[in-house]
Amino acid sequence: MYFKMFKAQGLAHLSYMLGNQGSAIIVDPKRDIEEYLEAAQAEGLKIEYILETHRQEDFIMGSAGLQAITGAKIVGGSHEIFNHCDLNLKEKQTLEVGNFTFKVFDTPGHTPESVCYALYLQDKEQCWGVFTGDALFIGDTGRTDLIDPDKTKENAFLLYDSINKKLKPLGEQTLLFPAHGSGSVCGGALASYDRSTLGFELGYNPVFTMSRDEFARHKLHERIPKPPYFELMEEINLNGGKAISGAPSNIEVLSPEMLKEKTKSNGVIIDTRLPEAFASGHIEGSYSVWLEGLAVFGGWILEEDTYVYLVMERESDLEKSFEFLSRLGVGKIKGFLAGGFEAWRDKGLPIEASGYIPVSKLKDGWDDCLIYDVREINEYEDEGHIPGSRHCYVGHLEDCIDEANIPHDQKIVVTCTVGHRGGLGTSIFLRKGYKNVHNLAGGMKAWNQLNLKTEGAQ
Amino acid sequence: MYFKMFKAQGLAHLSYMLGNQGSAIIVDPKRDIEEYLEAAQAEGLKIEYILETHRQEDFIMGSAGLQAITGAKIVGGSHEIFNHCDLNLKEKQTLEVGNFTFKVFDTPGHTPESVCYALYLQDKEQCWGVFTGDALFIGDTGRTDLIDPDKTKENAFLLYDSINKKLKPLGEQTLLFPAHGSGSVCGGALASYDRSTLGFELGYNPVFTMSRDEFARHKLHERIPKPPYFELMEEINLNGGKAISGAPSNIEVLSPEMLKEKTKSNGVIIDTRLPEAFASGHIEGSYSVWLEGLAVFGGWILEEDTYVYLVMERESDLEKSFEFLSRLGVGKIKGFLAGGFEAWRDKGLPIEASGYIPVSKLKDGWDDCLIYDVREINEYEDEGHIPGSRHCYVGHLEDCIDEANIPHDQKIVVTCTVGHRGGLGTSIFLRKGYKNVHNLAGGMKAWNQLNLKTEGAQ
Amino acid sequence: MYFKMFKAQGLAHLSYMLGNQGSAIIVDPKRDIEEYLEAAQAEGLKIEYILETHRQEDFIMGSAGLQAITGAKIVGGSHEIFNHCDLNLKEKQTLEVGNFTFKVFDTPGHTPESVCYALYLQDKEQCWGVFTGDALFIGDTGRTDLIDPDKTKENAFLLYDSINKKLKPLGEQTLLFPAHGSGSVCGGALASYDRSTLGFELGYNPVFTMSRDEFARHKLHERIPKPPYFELMEEINLNGGKAISGAPSNIEVLSPEMLKEKTKSNGVIIDTRLPEAFASGHIEGSYSVWLEGLAVFGGWILEEDTYVYLVMERESDLEKSFEFLSRLGVGKIKGFLAGGFEAWRDKGLPIEASGYIPVSKLKDGWDDCLIYDVREINEYEDEGHIPGSRHCYVGHLEDCIDEANIPHDQKIVVTCTVGHRGGLGTSIFLRKGYKNVHNLAGGMKAWNQLNLKTEGAQ
Amino acid sequence: MYFKMFKAQGLAHLSYMLGNQGSAIIVDPKRDIEEYLEAAQAEGLKIEYILETHRQEDFIMGSAGLQAITGAKIVGGSHEIFNHCDLNLKEKQTLEVGNFTFKVFDTPGHTPESVCYALYLQDKEQCWGVFTGDALFIGDTGRTDLIDPDKTKENAFLLYDSINKKLKPLGEQTLLFPAHGSGSVCGGALASYDRSTLGFELGYNPVFTMSRDEFARHKLHERIPKPPYFELMEEINLNGGKAISGAPSNIEVLSPEMLKEKTKSNGVIIDTRLPEAFASGHIEGSYSVWLEGLAVFGGWILEEDTYVYLVMERESDLEKSFEFLSRLGVGKIKGFLAGGFEAWRDKGLPIEASGYIPVSKLKDGWDDCLIYDVREINEYEDEGHIPGSRHCYVGHLEDCIDEANIPHDQKIVVTCTVGHRGGLGTSIFLRKGYKNVHNLAGGMKAWNQLNLKTEGAQ
Repeated sequence: MYFKMFKAQGLAHLSYMLGNQGSAIIVDPKRDIEEYLEAAQAEGLKIEYILETHRQEDFIMGSAGLQAITGAKIVGGSHEIFNHCDLNLKEKQTLEVGNFTFKVFDTPGHTPESVCYALYLQDKEQCWGVFTGDALFIGDTGRTDLIDPDKTKENAFLLYDSINKKLKPLGEQTLLFPAHGSGSVCGGALASYDRSTLGFELGYNPVFTMSRDEFARHKLHERIPKPPYFELMEEINLNGGKAISGAPSNIEVLSPEMLKEKTKSNGVIIDTRLPEAFASGHIEGSYSVWLEGLAVFGGWILEEDTYVYLVMERESDLEKSFEFLSRLGVGKIKGFLAGGFEAWRDKGLPIEASGYIPVSKLKDGWDDCLIYDVREINEYEDEGHIPGSRHCYVGHLEDCIDEANIPHDQKIVVTCTVGHRGGLGTSIFLRKGYKNVHNLAGGMKAWNQLNLKTEGAQ
Repeated sequence: MYFKMFKAQGLAHLSYMLGNQGSAIIVDPKRDIEEYLEAAQAEGLKIEYILETHRQEDFIMGSAGLQAITGAKIVGGSHEIFNHCDLNLKEKQTLEVGNFTFKVFDTPGHTPESVCYALYLQDKEQCWGVFTGDALFIGDTGRTDLIDPDKTKENAFLLYDSINKKLKPLGEQTLLFPAHGSGSVCGGALASYDRSTLGFELGYNPVFTMSRDEFARHKLHERIPKPPYFELMEEINLNGGKAISGAPSNIEVLSPEMLKEKTKSNGVIIDTRLPEAFASGHIEGSYSVWLEGLAVFGGWILEEDTYVYLVMERESDLEKSFEFLSRLGVGKIKGFLAGGFEAWRDKGLPIEASGYIPVSKLKDGWDDCLIYDVREINEYEDEGHIPGSRHCYVGHLEDCIDEANIPHDQKIVVTCTVGHRGGLGTSIFLRKGYKNVHNLAGGMKAWNQLNLKTEGAQ
Repeated sequence: MYFKMFKAQGLAHLSYMLGNQGSAIIVDPKRDIEEYLEAAQAEGLKIEYILETHRQEDFIMGSAGLQAITGAKIVGGSHEIFNHCDLNLKEKQTLEVGNFTFKVFDTPGHTPESVCYALYLQDKEQCWGVFTGDALFIGDTGRTDLIDPDKTKENAFLLYDSINKKLKPLGEQTLLFPAHGSGSVCGGALASYDRSTLGFELGYNPVFTMSRDEFARHKLHERIPKPPYFELMEEINLNGGKAISGAPSNIEVLSPEMLKEKTKSNGVIIDTRLPEAFASGHIEGSYSVWLEGLAVFGGWILEEDTYVYLVMERESDLEKSFEFLSRLGVGKIKGFLAGGFEAWRDKGLPIEASGYIPVSKLKDGWDDCLIYDVREINEYEDEGHIPGSRHCYVGHLEDCIDEANIPHDQKIVVTCTVGHRGGLGTSIFLRKGYKNVHNLAGGMKAWNQLNLKTEGAQ
Repeated sequence: MYFKMFKAQGLAHLSYMLGNQGSAIIVDPKRDIEEYLEAAQAEGLKIEYILETHRQEDFIMGSAGLQAITGAKIVGGSHEIFNHCDLNLKEKQTLEVGNFTFKVFDTPGHTPESVCYALYLQDKEQCWGVFTGDALFIGDTGRTDLIDPDKTKENAFLLYDSINKKLKPLGEQTLLFPAHGSGSVCGGALASYDRSTLGFELGYNPVFTMSRDEFARHKLHERIPKPPYFELMEEINLNGGKAISGAPSNIEVLSPEMLKEKTKSNGVIIDTRLPEAFASGHIEGSYSVWLEGLAVFGGWILEEDTYVYLVMERESDLEKSFEFLSRLGVGKIKGFLAGGFEAWRDKGLPIEASGYIPVSKLKDGWDDCLIYDVREINEYEDEGHIPGSRHCYVGHLEDCIDEANIPHDQKIVVTCTVGHRGGLGTSIFLRKGYKNVHNLAGGMKAWNQLNLKTEGAQ
């Protein structure tokens, strides 16, 4: 028996490959499928089944691409969203592969079509593990506001019942294999570990420790932003996603002059260096999105066909950047700046800078500045914020600025948890023509380390 | 929180690194510690504790080596075998590291000093996982004949009680982290998967499904060979093992003539190619041990200071060979043949060959041959063997041959499960001066695929 | 300035990347172009020109593939064979790229269109280096029999004049950058080093040390075989080659049963293990072509659309196998046997074996055997062969056997230089139904090491 | 025949491995010898000779370390500085290894003991290539002021004669293999390519195009700084260098608090991020040395036993940092900051910043600032500098500042070619207590791109 968990950075998406008697099964594949193909070849396994727990909304699925190459059968539940599947399993129907028996359970709540697959090993009566998709995470559950924010509560009830009535009976011994794991850039209540059991979750996961009503209130309180590209995903994933086109090695190498020319009329520049480097100097008009952040925030600032030009710390970051945007299915990387920002700088081309201020500086004065906290609303409200700071989630900042009508010479400080989203926020202000914009070094983490005053912490 | 399982090929030894608030803990480290050091650096963790579940007997432990570099504290139980530890924990004593609480349980049976470490995460009442060393495996338990074969039964009782009285109460949800996993070369009853829970084991692990007496009988029946190097290990590991000296890149490159010269008076040649290639042609006097097999069978044919000369399929196999023998602590690799067997062959130097016969040939006649089955005694007895075949475990074959007094021109066929240990057996016969020796292609697996007659299967 | 030589294993093809002020130039690219794209990106260079010295006949060119991705201009001489180029340079015309000046010289002889590119660096009067394609190698020259064997002599005169009149005047200091280098599997008179100068060649390269007539006689004597796939290449390369389709990761993983099924009606099995392993056991009907040999001998046994199934020593050899066949443009790899030959063997499926005999055995008797020497005719004639052995080049062996009408039970020994081509020869005899076929271990190299009698050496 | 050039980043040191009939020869090895050992093993070569062209002064030689492992013989000339060698060759004496003949020539000038090794291949009369150490580079020659600045002229005469009388006669065809190549961080007149011939050098290398007197004047004008660690090297290299102790994986992982504690009383912090990131924020007291620059500037700021603590962009930079300092033989890396500068920042620990100003800002005003140009004196004088700027080489800046007695609130701008050495200069000013220090973005390259006024350009 072969078992491997694949973790995609940034989204912290988890997918799985199981092998048995020469056959491999992939659960919830990501779009960049090379890893699966290579692992299967190295193990001498033929990929025969692709199991989908639900239609993913935060990345393009790899089912269609994998099927095109391997001929594997796509398996889903019985909801019409699974119409693209080759095999639609109804509640409690089973799929046998070698010594494995997968048993399907309809577990709506996160999305209406969600299913879980309980895996039984040969001759063993008890369930070994369960693939839960976005229904049940370690320490958390999937959001219930996604399909219709007005039905968050109803969906929370649905989810509560799905998990308590269908998964809980699988037994405390059951290993948990969800579709998202620790380390998501976006924060959230997921545990910091990627191994757990149903029994362990019983002790502290809200879906088990709360009453049905408490749980619904808890979900209502979540208010997680929904990036604009989710709608695109939903459409593409109706067909099991689509294969990646292009390759990082095909991306054009640009000189500073060529970059200038290319971006004159079309496309955006994304600077993937760390916020400190961006603050000292960068190309005017560029977004600051640190490398790992691209995996998430690319989905907020790019549309499917936006032309993207990269300014990177190291040329070897190109592959990861390509991978991150490919998963989201947004942006077309048309080129990168050869030699990075240094090449631009050494040509004497115009450099823009922003401020980067330590917490110590902000606390002593700067009364005249306007502080924007660009974290999620729950982080702002529940974890405390700097007194007097305004809130606007970084993904909505462009609109906020347009509405706020602030004079362009106003001194602005942007903050988040440690300064990454703050860097993006800073670059958005700069793009809007603000000249006196500063990123708070270390963000709220540094602020709290110094025990400075906050408002609103629970 | 950081969690990583490290699996050492060959021995299928499992060790673990956990990280938390900047501190790392290593459980049961292997001797080649680079992997731990690199992972810790990559994660920004300082290795502060090394937990030993027991004194390993099948490989040199990495505790002493790790401590020399990192200054980490070695932690063990309260038995005197743990005297080299910096911290000796008594039954139910705890060790706190960041958010982790490790609770120790004395679990004798496999060895008298064995302990298990139950891990509790911050604020969670239930045990998250337990590090069981060689007490409890997935699907199996540690052998109880190791310290004193005459006390196998008593130790089985001890082990049974340790597991049922101390581990079982940790709860069904508890993840299992043993010191050996699937894929051990030696076979055995370990499951083919490396993830399980106490609850899942309840359903099928003999230590839970059998009565105390049944279990003792079961352990008495195991009869696993004990390689001679175990005694060396026991001595070295009393001090937490010792650091590796040397490095693969320091091993001497030899021409055929130099190899001939060097091995004239001292040292053994090990040919790590697959048995098929060995059969066609090899250097007289060499042992046939396929690459992965070196991780185990090196311990049967080598002593601590034996000089070893390698003939390899590819020069890149040197690193693995070095690693395998370093773990066992036997053999000093003094050189390898540049260009492999081909270089020897192209010089027109003498080549020895052995036979390699398909099952189809053996079944039709060959009445005059003597068949040696070199698997473990339980494999021979319980899984069926070729009618008329003699048994002698490959690790004891040198002695068996000496005692058996077979004429040197006798036609001999060696078999095992698929032909790897058969290759080693063949080479041992050749080294003893037998001229008409054949390895059975595919071994008992091929024999059974053709539904040929066997004796003794249960 | 950036300069890198790329050496393709097997064919020992050399290509070059030069960089300068942000622009890269590639000379004579191979079909697998990833290496160029990655190097250019890592150096921040934009590939702008692809220089072709001539239409390659032994591999599919990478020009068309590179152009499709980078938009680079393809550059060639003025002969009509270069009609697919974007830029056709006449004798002594120059191409300026940054600080580089390339000057073209028509150097027919190997092929009618052949040109060389002399490279001058900024402000330097003397030629720095010259890209000679297949006109001038280190220690050797290109074959002159390729286009029309009846005009070998005329072409030799042409080549002699091209090199002596056009290249020699570039000066002794000129670095030599040919399209083939040391280590060609096929042997030949190329030097064993890849760096030389025109001045150094003057001292020993036949094209400089011989008179015009001596040189023509020398070329007439060469008699190098011409593989059947060359004609295919010539056609494809009229268009600058074509891009690779597919990828190694897309190749199907096969169980023994599936392999059996797939190859029943269509396709060939190639066993890329070393000849020793092949001799002990292999699947009936398979060709024996050692991994590196695939880069050359694939072109002799495969046609463009032959379905290929691989049996490999290690699964990681798949990538190289794919690369080798892709370069030649022959064979479609449809699958590989998971677990290699061992998987087949362990199923008890029928195994075929051949003999593998040491030289010592052959010299003492074996009078009844028929020896086939499958080296090139020049190796057979000029370097000595075993008295009484027949000659047939391995690439022509299928036809030879058909014509020779030898009884199927005849004892046959196949030999070559060391035993690799001998392995292929052995497998060809087996495929023709011969049952008593043996590969000579170490071939003529081992034979000569023992100072055994040969015929025909010069 | 095997030939490989090894290029060490930073110092652009070139070393060579040649192989032939199973024996390898290494010329001028660097201290980190793993690459040689691995290449030799991969090629099946036994390292038998180590050739030294002279006692290196800018890095610790690998001869002693290589010999300790391989037992190879160290070969040098007949000067007493080569007393540690096993084999001392006199002028025109030869060393035969397989088909190679190395012929030694005394070529003093750079250093008194310098020799060159001319390599002849079997049966070839002409010299194939010559290993020139620091006597003759591509486009340049070794400095002649090193041993005694007062004898720069005499040594220039010596060097001129060595090269013209001994090397030139080897012939225009001779390949050039010097000990330093293109890409040296320090600048200098070396060509940007690493392949050349004696004949090609004749056309433009000053040692050939100038008269003896012109050449001496040319060398007198060079004025290259001599780092303090050179004296240490000279002593250590009298014994053929010494082996590296320690390994990157043994370096301690530090939390911000631990770093603070450790550096309180002893040791320096080096921040290897790019100057832009350093400018925005860094730990007080740290040196700014970009990663590649460590290979050179480590030698200016560190002594043999200085404790070094690293703050790096990425944890994977540790290996390179270790390698760079090991080559120089200065500094003991005792730890690195886990999580880099971000970890420090997120703790709210004090952050220091410096200015980073674009050229455009400087040109329009800033009349009150003091500009320090920290390039080499020749760069400052010959290539033009900002009117009014002071010169002090970055390596001497600590002393300059002490002498200059500038008020601590003076506004200071530091510049160099593009801003890397400027970053180091900035950090040195900060360490001296200056509070208003700025690095000029893009340095003189950006300044010149805008065609701004300079003084002193030739």
